[in-house]
Amino acid sequence: MDSSAAEQRAMRRALELARTPGVPLGPNPRVGCVLLDDDGRTVAEGYHRGAGTPHAEAAALAEAGELARGTTAVVTLEPCHHTGRTGPCTEALVGAGVRRVVFAQPDPNPVAAGGERALREAGLEVSSGLLERESRALNRAWTFALEHGRPFVTWKLATTLDGRSAAADGTSRWISSRPARRDTHRLRAECDVVLAGTGTVAVDDPALTVRDVEDQPLPHQPLRAVMGLRDLAPDRRVLDDQAETVLLATHDPAEALARLHDLGRRHVFLEGGPTLAAAFVRAGLVDEVVAYVAPLLLGAGTPAVGDLGITTIASALHLRVTDVAVLADPADETNVRLTLAPTHDPHEERD
Amino acid sequence: MDSSAAEQRAMRRALELARTPGVPLGPNPRVGCVLLDDDGRTVAEGYHRGAGTPHAEAAALAEAGELARGTTAVVTLEPCHHTGRTGPCTEALVGAGVRRVVFAQPDPNPVAAGGERALREAGLEVSSGLLERESRALNRAWTFALEHGRPFVTWKLATTLDGRSAAADGTSRWISSRPARRDTHRLRAECDVVLAGTGTVAVDDPALTVRDVEDQPLPHQPLRAVMGLRDLAPDRRVLDDQAETVLLATHDPAEALARLHDLGRRHVFLEGGPTLAAAFVRAGLVDEVVAYVAPLLLGAGTPAVGDLGITTIASALHLRVTDVAVLADPADETNVRLTLAPTHDPHEERD
Ligand SMILES: NC(=O)c1ccc[n+]([C@@H]2O[C@H](COP(=O)([O-])OP(=O)(O)OC[C@H]3O[C@@H](n4cnc5c(N)ncnc54)[C@H](OP(=O)(O)O)[C@@H]3O)[C@@H](O)[C@H]2O)c1
Ligand SMILES: NC(=O)c1ccc[n+]([C@@H]2O[C@H](COP(=O)([O-])OP(=O)(O)OC[C@H]3O[C@@H](n4cnc5c(N)ncnc54)[C@H](OP(=O)(O)O)[C@@H]3O)[C@@H](O)[C@H]2O)c1
Repeated sequence: MDSSAAEQRAMRRALELARTPGVPLGPNPRVGCVLLDDDGRTVAEGYHRGAGTPHAEAAALAEAGELARGTTAVVTLEPCHHTGRTGPCTEALVGAGVRRVVFAQPDPNPVAAGGERALREAGLEVSSGLLERESRALNRAWTFALEHGRPFVTWKLATTLDGRSAAADGTSRWISSRPARRDTHRLRAECDVVLAGTGTVAVDDPALTVRDVEDQPLPHQPLRAVMGLRDLAPDRRVLDDQAETVLLATHDPAEALARLHDLGRRHVFLEGGPTLAAAFVRAGLVDEVVAYVAPLLLGAGTPAVGDLGITTIASALHLRVTDVAVLADPADETNVRLTLAPTHDPHEERD
Repeated sequence: MDSSAAEQRAMRRALELARTPGVPLGPNPRVGCVLLDDDGRTVAEGYHRGAGTPHAEAAALAEAGELARGTTAVVTLEPCHHTGRTGPCTEALVGAGVRRVVFAQPDPNPVAAGGERALREAGLEVSSGLLERESRALNRAWTFALEHGRPFVTWKLATTLDGRSAAADGTSRWISSRPARRDTHRLRAECDVVLAGTGTVAVDDPALTVRDVEDQPLPHQPLRAVMGLRDLAPDRRVLDDQAETVLLATHDPAEALARLHDLGRRHVFLEGGPTLAAAFVRAGLVDEVVAYVAPLLLGAGTPAVGDLGITTIASALHLRVTDVAVLADPADETNVRLTLAPTHDPHEERD
């Protein structure tokens, strides 16, 4: 079933609504919805603000009231067909008299799926797949977590061009430039857990919060998680009240992820240190690497990546470059950001 | 004096001619020349093929013969005004009856300069500066060498994302992927010296020649230079007859560069190894860094950059990223190429 230009525009708008910054992600996907009348005009809009709040469709229907009758609902995700904290969206759409539903991504959640069929059975027109790729990208970690039963892990790494995270005397200024630090906060805000090892918390005492350009914490904070067996000194900043913190008293990355998954978390931002990151790499539990490369050479100093138990090139962790960005700032060092995904293809022999 | 659209087009063409691949660079600049008639039509073209061959203007005048009379000569470099192996181009242009000269870059060579004035004194119209930036870029190393009295040094570096040039057991496959190796040959071909230390020659036995995609040596080869005090085993490939080779029996980078400059060389491609590269960095004699970053993590192994005598971050070698390219090849690892220039600006305090 073809989608009209108006529906395409509405889907772009629905994606934009779904991307609303500051939405607490929790265990739910980002979803946007636009209701269109017969002339392709917008009647109402809605988006999902996080667990416990109305789904995007319900929000749009509430805004539309009686005007929902006869509209086309353009929604980024297949409407759910199960009763969670809110009733099924399929019923709400049918009850409100919506005539047609256009959705982007089929619901990968087995519990919630079946929406398309239910809508068709109720006599609505249904069209799927419009801007599906964009919707999947939006809910990449959520989709991954549903499919793999554990959160998606992004490992952030800051290094000089020659693979150092600090000079021989421990100094590390400029290795994360201002644009790289800002970018890190932007990425943290897209995750729902910021994870560090007890070593980093003991040495650096990071806040692990998401802060704006004025260094003020944002209203919605990801969960802070600290992994390791030792007790944290009570003065550590991760224990302040700026965000929730969970202590993961284990050395097993899979166990830590299972715990975070049970807490409804879907996207872990792993900030190190090297020992913890190496444990995740060795366990095959890194799904994305974001490397900030500072244009500095040191020739010596702390290696940015700790021992991975790799002794020969055939065992190297092979990655695929998915994005390259130059983070420039007239008043600071330019950093290059490489985004990479582990590849699992066997490499052929060559010379 | 404004340049017409025809002159701009002709200058782009002259730059293209100057860039003709395989031109032996020797101590001479790359220059292209186009002769235009009154209607902006091309009468003849020429470019400089290297030391001992006619200058670009002379080549174009020879092609034009009698038709040169009354033309406009569009040339990438200010016509020379001295008698070298060929007579001054100014005289040739005047003698052929050229009416107007448009050039891009003023000649930085004090010996050859004065062309513009001589042409004006002979009654020709002269316009300068058209696409000067492009012409300077073309002869970047030559201009640098004239201004600094030594060759320009490009250091090529191949590293994993975590700063390793080989795994713990010495294996290094994939660290230079096929697209990176091809790109290296392209860059080598733009230089007139390929330099390596005796250590690399002893261990890797590289040919240090420029080869095409079928691995066949190109007709024109840069000079091969090997630096260090020890004798080379006679079976080393750098001693074969595929290209000239010079042995630089010194540990002093400045002395080595002076020697290469005396040999008429203007652009050194420093291929390592780490000991030699570190000596050039420490001496402040690296003018450009080309880093091929392989998307691999090793966590251990040979550092790609040897000890630079840097112990604290304030002494780090700061670079400016001038270019980022993704070298992709469907059949091989993608590499990221970063091109950087050392910065000599003092860094302000910041946190
Ligand atoms: N360049 C960067 O991007 C970056 C980022 C963060 C930190 N750092 C630096 O890293 C340094 C800290 O290094 P680090 O390696 O000690 O930090 P870390 O990885 O944060 O912490 C290591 C500790 O985590 C615990 N742990 C949790 N899971 C583990 C496992 N599977 N295996 C082993 N230990 C596990 C252990 O402590 P328990 O004894 O408590 O179990 C271990 O000592 C600091 O200097 C910091 O500045 C650099
Ligand atoms: N990753 C890469 O891009 C890359 C590139 C090239 C080589 N490599 C690897 O590097 C390894 C060789 O390392 P290397 O450091 O021995 O190679 P090197 O830098 O090529 O050679 C070092 C030798 O050069 C001589 N030398 C010249 N100037 C010197 C100076 N100023 N100070 C000290 N020595 C000077 C010394 O030998 P004398 O005793 O003869 O004076 C010294 O032993 C090989 O395994 C090779 O595979 C890697």
